[in-house]
Amino acid sequence: MNSGPIDFEVCARDGAARVGRLGTAHGTIVTPAFMPVGTRAAVKAMAPDELRTLGYGMILANAYHLAVRPGADVVRELGGLHRFMGWQGAVLTDSGGFQAMSLAKTNSIDESGICFRSHLDGQRLVFTPESAIEIQERLGADIMMSLDECTAYPADAARARSSLELTARWAERSLKARRSVAQALFGIVQGGVYPELRKLSAGQITALGFDGFAVGGLAVGEPKAQMREIAALSAGLLPADKPRYLMGVGTPQDVVAAVAMGYDMFDCVLPTRNARNGSAFTSEGRISIKHARYARDGSPLDPDCDCRTCRTFSRGYLRHLYMAGEILAARALTEHNLHFYSRLMREAQAAISSGTYDAFARGLMAAGPDWEEGPDKATNNVA
Amino acid sequence: MNSGPIDFEVCARDGAARVGRLGTAHGTIVTPAFMPVGTRAAVKAMAPDELRTLGYGMILANAYHLAVRPGADVVRELGGLHRFMGWQGAVLTDSGGFQAMSLAKTNSIDESGICFRSHLDGQRLVFTPESAIEIQERLGADIMMSLDECTAYPADAARARSSLELTARWAERSLKARRSVAQALFGIVQGGVYPELRKLSAGQITALGFDGFAVGGLAVGEPKAQMREIAALSAGLLPADKPRYLMGVGTPQDVVAAVAMGYDMFDCVLPTRNARNGSAFTSEGRISIKHARYARDGSPLDPDCDCRTCRTFSRGYLRHLYMAGEILAARALTEHNLHFYSRLMREAQAAISSGTYDAFARGLMAAGPDWEEGPDKATNNVA
Repeated sequence: MNSGPIDFEVCARDGAARVGRLGTAHGTIVTPAFMPVGTRAAVKAMAPDELRTLGYGMILANAYHLAVRPGADVVRELGGLHRFMGWQGAVLTDSGGFQAMSLAKTNSIDESGICFRSHLDGQRLVFTPESAIEIQERLGADIMMSLDECTAYPADAARARSSLELTARWAERSLKARRSVAQALFGIVQGGVYPELRKLSAGQITALGFDGFAVGGLAVGEPKAQMREIAALSAGLLPADKPRYLMGVGTPQDVVAAVAMGYDMFDCVLPTRNARNGSAFTSEGRISIKHARYARDGSPLDPDCDCRTCRTFSRGYLRHLYMAGEILAARALTEHNLHFYSRLMREAQAAISSGTYDAFARGLMAAGPDWEEGPDKATNNVA
Repeated sequence: MNSGPIDFEVCARDGAARVGRLGTAHGTIVTPAFMPVGTRAAVKAMAPDELRTLGYGMILANAYHLAVRPGADVVRELGGLHRFMGWQGAVLTDSGGFQAMSLAKTNSIDESGICFRSHLDGQRLVFTPESAIEIQERLGADIMMSLDECTAYPADAARARSSLELTARWAERSLKARRSVAQALFGIVQGGVYPELRKLSAGQITALGFDGFAVGGLAVGEPKAQMREIAALSAGLLPADKPRYLMGVGTPQDVVAAVAMGYDMFDCVLPTRNARNGSAFTSEGRISIKHARYARDGSPLDPDCDCRTCRTFSRGYLRHLYMAGEILAARALTEHNLHFYSRLMREAQAAISSGTYDAFARGLMAAGPDWEEGPDKATNNVA
């Protein structure tokens, strides 16, 4: 559909939901796609060949964290992110804007950029829109994200407005700073929980020549209903011929709902972080493996799953591993949870292609299992 | 060679070294064989199919640790150790005698057995020779170990003597307690660092009807030269038609030396524990991956290795993973170290079969790389 660093083609539609093909220099990804989070150039507990086997074609890494350690130059010297990680698929790098919010205590923001104090050793690290691009180019990301100011929740309208205006000025600077024609660059829409401000931001960002568009600043603590309302509104403000990426979302229900809105790309730490905390996504809802009731349970984590974990281990064994602090517990649960998300996306794609997405989504959303985190709080990638 | 729960056949000899076939209900293991340590029914950081791929046919688990958590009944209810772990190969269980020494502060020993205070919650747990067998039968081990009193180092001759005499009385009780005809039972020779006491103990233990014989109480802190001297002496005191197992040994040099003495089986936490501490066994010696000099090193851990870690990752990436505390660091280094030991055993087998073991061992021992732990201390399975 374009001749830039990525190709995006919509292959099927069902309402606003769509199936697409996102072509990158490291393979074609069928969308809607979920990206496992590999903050420090590793998806926690997983080996790269396992991610491939699970059906993933693209992962997310974080420019800020990698700039702190081991440094973008080291990654470049070792062949760029793909070779560094031994990962054959595509990589999207987040810019560091989210960390300016999540690590806000030690940072300051002004017109020029974000001044981080390293969360490791207190060293000063300045991220400007220009340096964020330079770092991501050095890392060798297939898709780079422009530096944004991720608006925290709560924020009043004046604060949200100044934040989105800064994000727009940074977006222009990001595009000007780009040197690599082989790496795609996405812009990020902000605007907090204010519909009018989301419209303003989307108008500003989509007027620029980005290869795709992300909606940021959601799932940062606002009520779930508000997250979905703003996400739905924002999706409709983004061009139909470019990939749409809802950042940091989310639970299986969130993802299924967002696919219906027309989003194509997602990332979230939930499947990996929850796994390390002993929590599994299953066809029967969420399971906390530490519960004593699983101690003598010989059945698999999810009777409706054919992942390696469910083919090999019982709930009783997984509970034992978790209670004993064995690394294999984190591995086995992470593999299962990532399999669960991968399968969810394949099922969503199939439902869109066959024109049955509405029934698929309703089945999961209404009478389906409960995978939510809490009563009404959205969660995000606090990496 | 016998019709008991295991078959052992010596296929080739070279000096005292021999290649054997150890047939169990869960497959045949070519000896000399190294057993990875899976104390709590998991080889730390590894999945069972990976152990198989690495060439392992038998692993070790620990009766004491599993009796404490999750309990032998739970393991039995969940199908026994093999099904519990999802492990197709054979399992040898250590009895708990070693833990009576390594966790000595909280234990007491008398004629009846060992009274443990659980290292987890202080609960009282009595291991008698009879209950140690019962627990191992419940766990479903292919090879059980009789309960011994592992003599600590240093111990004077009187202490070592009373300890080996107790071990011999417990050995008789262990054999009488056995109910399962499908599970093999090995006796353990003690005697500290005293040649005469080793002869006495070996005479007592080999007079009993065990399926194989182990040498215990070595690599517990005595000087390396003394460990090798006693190990060599002890090997010659064990019957040639039964498997000989040198417990808790050791470094690659230790294993290579012990194979020359006629030992067939080994276990040690070194490859797995060292991996989690960032230390790798390579054809160039030991590497501590945390060293800054590896930060920009694009070469594999071991240029002479074809394991998944060496095929996929650079030293620079592995160092990054280790410094960042990523689980993948433990996985990748463990997989490499276990591959190193597996290959070492295959090479030892081949050298014996071709009558070149002496040259093989000399090459590794004299001019070869240094894999030792420290100047002269032997190390053991402090699980």
